[in-house]
Amino acid sequence: MHFTSEQRLDDAVCERTFTLGEIPGILWTPASASAPAPLILLGHPPLGLGRMYPRLAARAQHCAAEGFATATIELPGSGDRPRWPAAERARADLRRAMEAGGPLSDEIIDALILPLVDKAVPEWQAALDALLSLPDLGGPVGYSGGVISIGTRLAVVEPRISAAVLFAGSFVPRAVFEEARQVTIPLHVLLQWDDEGNDRQAALDLFDAFGSKEKSLHANMGGHTGIPQSAGDAAGRFLTRHLKRG
Amino acid sequence: MHFTSEQRLDDAVCERTFTLGEIPGILWTPASASAPAPLILLGHPPLGLGRMYPRLAARAQHCAAEGFATATIELPGSGDRPRWPAAERARADLRRAMEAGGPLSDEIIDALILPLVDKAVPEWQAALDALLSLPDLGGPVGYSGGVISIGTRLAVVEPRISAAVLFAGSFVPRAVFEEARQVTIPLHVLLQWDDEGNDRQAALDLFDAFGSKEKSLHANMGGHTGIPQSAGDAAGRFLTRHLKRG
Repeated sequence: MHFTSEQRLDDAVCERTFTLGEIPGILWTPASASAPAPLILLGHPPLGLGRMYPRLAARAQHCAAEGFATATIELPGSGDRPRWPAAERARADLRRAMEAGGPLSDEIIDALILPLVDKAVPEWQAALDALLSLPDLGGPVGYSGGVISIGTRLAVVEPRISAAVLFAGSFVPRAVFEEARQVTIPLHVLLQWDDEGNDRQAALDLFDAFGSKEKSLHANMGGHTGIPQSAGDAAGRFLTRHLKRG
Repeated sequence: MHFTSEQRLDDAVCERTFTLGEIPGILWTPASASAPAPLILLGHPPLGLGRMYPRLAARAQHCAAEGFATATIELPGSGDRPRWPAAERARADLRRAMEAGGPLSDEIIDALILPLVDKAVPEWQAALDALLSLPDLGGPVGYSGGVISIGTRLAVVEPRISAAVLFAGSFVPRAVFEEARQVTIPLHVLLQWDDEGNDRQAALDLFDAFGSKEKSLHANMGGHTGIPQSAGDAAGRFLTRHLKRG
């Protein structure tokens, strides 16, 4: 992990960009932290860190005010990272199927999402290894947002993650749906009720499938990016409740 | 409205019992209030105020700590109030249908709930008239909990109610389902995901039907009375956001 830049946001947050091998990432730490800060991994949709930066930085500043460090990495095939031919084909198949207006087949969703999950999850784990070796970061670790299939797989395979906020809103392969039953950590699931790009019933079924004893679903009106401030605040309180020590 | 007793709870809350005609009720006001307090009507299931008192008093104390007055009245046919024969028959029909294990017919649900809603809603409105004439109570008014069909009808017909917390968990007649489309006030709906006495899909359909632009659904694990503390706190924050002036 090599830090490539450092700046202050509003004097309250230290923002450092880094690379982890070929993967770019960003780390935000509260400028005033006196002890190692608990860490929240900020998930995001595969639109590229550059495009997502304003929303990610706003979430990071909000988290820093609560004493959390936050970090994110570029997803495979997004931003400046190399595309791979199968992903391009899967995206073209998805576009054709959506233009045709029919339901999306399991095959299209599997081809689109599974390789992304398979590639991304070990990268987030490697990022976690590197991040937790820094002196200003400690546990526990939370995950928040992004592609729900990545968050689900991470919640199953990564024991250092002790609570997660998941955003319903992406296609979920059958294999990941089955993995959801193995999740045991506390979950706070956000659902935008009128999200045109999201199958509401599939999101409710996935929520039902999660194995966690403590899970809650929070549905709000509006489209994919219309999560109200109060719902964001409630998700923040969930993470604070589960990740703050003592 | 005649006050029949007065006591302090923990020095912080003044609890007064009253009768409104033949209807018993309870009013809780913050002992320290300097200005007229906003009021939350505390709904409850038709189990009798006596049986519900511990839960209602706890909610009242919680609300008083946030500066709210709260009030509740006995439901028609509950507690010491007279039963009516049609309600007894409807309850017997419900028991038989549930013992038979089949789905409940619309006729059974209508016979059970509609007369209760028709009788209770004008009583809550009369209570509101009396309560708001007291010098220590002011607007705005919220409604929280209880039989969701009563809360839905009240939200439609009573313009003084400006926000409501509704608990999914009772049978909803078709007529009330249609009324839900006319609700426009902000709603915060709680759903216990594993509530055996509640049809989850019907609750989701009702949430979808509410006409309010601002509505949110909060589903938590557990049975009918297992609402976690954090979910109760979030409902309280919703009411504070909508009812606190200035």
